[in-house]
Amino acid sequence: MKKFEHGGNIRGKNVLYDFSVNTNPLGTDKRIVDAAAAATKNCGAYPDADYTDLREALARYEGVNAENIAVSNGASEMIFAVARAVMPKKAVLASPTFSEYERALTSVGCDISYYALKEENDFRTERDIPDMLDGADMAFMCNPNNPTGTLCDYDIIREAAKRTVCVADECFMDFTDGVSARGITPVIKAFTKTHALAGLRIGYLIADAEFTERVRAQLPAWNVNAAAEAAAIAAVECGDYLKNSAGVIKAEREYLKNELMKIGFKVFPSDANFILVKGAEGVSDKLLKRGILVRSCGNFRGLDSRFYRVAVKTRAENEILVRELGEIYG
Amino acid sequence: MKKFEHGGNIRGKNVLYDFSVNTNPLGTDKRIVDAAAAATKNCGAYPDADYTDLREALARYEGVNAENIAVSNGASEMIFAVARAVMPKKAVLASPTFSEYERALTSVGCDISYYALKEENDFRTERDIPDMLDGADMAFMCNPNNPTGTLCDYDIIREAAKRTVCVADECFMDFTDGVSARGITPVIKAFTKTHALAGLRIGYLIADAEFTERVRAQLPAWNVNAAAEAAAIAAVECGDYLKNSAGVIKAEREYLKNELMKIGFKVFPSDANFILVKGAEGVSDKLLKRGILVRSCGNFRGLDSRFYRVAVKTRAENEILVRELGEIYG
Repeated sequence: MKKFEHGGNIRGKNVLYDFSVNTNPLGTDKRIVDAAAAATKNCGAYPDADYTDLREALARYEGVNAENIAVSNGASEMIFAVARAVMPKKAVLASPTFSEYERALTSVGCDISYYALKEENDFRTERDIPDMLDGADMAFMCNPNNPTGTLCDYDIIREAAKRTVCVADECFMDFTDGVSARGITPVIKAFTKTHALAGLRIGYLIADAEFTERVRAQLPAWNVNAAAEAAAIAAVECGDYLKNSAGVIKAEREYLKNELMKIGFKVFPSDANFILVKGAEGVSDKLLKRGILVRSCGNFRGLDSRFYRVAVKTRAENEILVRELGEIYG
Repeated sequence: MKKFEHGGNIRGKNVLYDFSVNTNPLGTDKRIVDAAAAATKNCGAYPDADYTDLREALARYEGVNAENIAVSNGASEMIFAVARAVMPKKAVLASPTFSEYERALTSVGCDISYYALKEENDFRTERDIPDMLDGADMAFMCNPNNPTGTLCDYDIIREAAKRTVCVADECFMDFTDGVSARGITPVIKAFTKTHALAGLRIGYLIADAEFTERVRAQLPAWNVNAAAEAAAIAAVECGDYLKNSAGVIKAEREYLKNELMKIGFKVFPSDANFILVKGAEGVSDKLLKRGILVRSCGNFRGLDSRFYRVAVKTRAENEILVRELGEIYG
């Protein structure tokens, strides 16, 4: 696995069930797919360069003003744009966490130091972490953290935001019962995970107007394409679908945790739609021979190849994973 | 008009005929639209992170290897990525030219100097321009140049490439009889104009493997969405459509040039699918009252509000423009 390889890379593999991708297990709402497909009919026309309708829809959804919203081609573009807007010399990241922060910070020549989330504390973000941010120009805090799955206490983020430009990545937040840090620090969100729009890419920033404008200056013109723009505007109206999805995830996560523990995995607590587990090496290879892909965490800083990230999917799929793992290890 | 506003921004205007957008006048090939629409059905899945199929298709189309291709969310993202990969301190641009170069260079804190293309020389790129590049870290050369329309001599680009990192933007090249600078200097291309994919965004870089890799490090993961990826792969097979479009443009450009001259405009030579003209101030406002949008060039450095960029469209549309202008000025 390459240093920055992500989940969901099924090219050249015989994958029937992809547990490496942590998008909404119910898939994309039909209303969103239809809106995207309809938008492609008019693909000769430029998107609105200011994304006024899209930013207003997202502002309504988040309870802020359109001037507080910038939009991007997935969260990954926003992570890079924020790094460039801040141009930090020194930044701090958790270990393990989502690898695009490191790529984005490295691309602007930033020195990165890491605070290790501890296995003995279930990889939770701890109260002494804000102290480590003194002297740093920037931090990314993934909440809930990917791949470890737990929410960070609101108080910790509030404290961190006092020390540095602390950007909270809340791409999985709407699946959880957690509280957004919008209003106290810049927040990156996306519909990639929550509405299963990995193929269309829609990310956004919620921040004060001045910071938002600085980030917009780092984004190329027409950075959200017409299909993604239409999908995102439709997604804002699909709150019911998201709420329903969150309920399914909660129930299925408990099912999957219990079953994986029975099989003998060490299962870490999770507030998200994925679970970090620890077992023997080679589980992912054995599963792949059976057409099931899980995310080997060997290329996450601070983890090793005994760790796996398993997406919470529908009951039928989860049962297949459990059955196949049972056959391998039972 | 705002400093960096582009053509095609029809929001809030009553536009029946948009001559401000210089995309393929025949629109998007149905094969491309169908491929994009089909891709939206699977929008929950990530695009291939390496874009192997897409890069191989583009490499075939350009007669290079996949290692020489990087892909982007429209040419505009690539312009920013190239600027960041080079991180120039001093850059040189033509005046007038496409405004995203200035935005991208400014975003990396680069000083820009300008060489003025001269009206008395029909705004052509002149032989002494490479001399102005000595001491610069970078230049963008738009070929054919937007908004002025003429091709730059191959020898001039070859000479420029010896002086600095000279990135040729050939977004309109496939409409012309010009020769690409690929192989002698990094080239940015896109299907935005040639295949009327402004709404889906697909740009790419053709360069040596080392430069390509440096630029890829500046691009976020999954930067081309699934609809754009599918559209671009389909577009590579639509060479016949493009050839036919180029023929229509050539004939219609002559028609439009002659008619606009008869009406009294100064018409500059063009090798592209748009024409720069000079007339009285206020032409665009008068046309807009009749539902026709042309690109006022008042916000192009080196031009003023007497200049307009007019897209070459189909005969039926061109006749309407000519008729309305005739009524205004006849």
